[in-house]
Amino acid sequence: MRAKAVSTNTTEGVTGTSDRTFSLGGHILTAPRAAAGLHLVATPIGNLGDITVRALETLAGVDVIACEDTRITRRLTERYGIAAELTPYHEHNAASARPKILARLAAGASIALVSDAGTPLISDPG
Amino acid sequence: MRAKAVSTNTTEGVTGTSDRTFSLGGHILTAPRAAAGLHLVATPIGNLGDITVRALETLAGVDVIACEDTRITRRLTERYGIAAELTPYHEHNAASARPKILARLAAGASIALVSDAGTPLISDPG
Repeated sequence: MRAKAVSTNTTEGVTGTSDRTFSLGGHILTAPRAAAGLHLVATPIGNLGDITVRALETLAGVDVIACEDTRITRRLTERYGIAAELTPYHEHNAASARPKILARLAAGASIALVSDAGTPLISDPG
Repeated sequence: MRAKAVSTNTTEGVTGTSDRTFSLGGHILTAPRAAAGLHLVATPIGNLGDITVRALETLAGVDVIACEDTRITRRLTERYGIAAELTPYHEHNAASARPKILARLAAGASIALVSDAGTPLISDPG
């Protein structure tokens, strides 16, 4: 599903230039490139330390993070030095945002879906 | 609650010689010394990557980890290079183990309580 040629064109479904790293305790850790497709990722509901190692690897390893409020999710990604692109996806923009997300998925992108806190669609205390 | 003199006597409630580090992605991270008292820590139910940053810091930062089966919990601590002492605490040894744990807590030790998987006492799918 990945583009065969390395591309720096970030308007494509798959971007090739991201760092795919996260920061913890002053160390820079490398995340594997996430598999193409949609990844549902649970995020902390109060303490930013309550995120799993696998969630950090996924958020750092995807091409795009689709989130409710980019300002809230950016607190999390900044805390862990994650450079993945954030794109808003919520009930008020879903009609226009969903086709773009689906097009990127069809092009082979890896996309994480998060809510402001908790597990998106399943356990979201907000 | 901490002993005033540095001690290498590991039979005391508070040990002073542990590393209090954990390993992630080839990096050695330092955990703060956990506060004196009992810490309930949720552990993964299938994928060892499903442990939070705060759980790792707590397991690495305590003096002792009280667990159901030391062989199972050791898989987790070895995966993350955590050197904390493991002590068994389960329904079959509770009568003898509980007073020792309480004595260590009274002496100012920090103790993490884990089950084989999940959240001890609250959500333990085992």
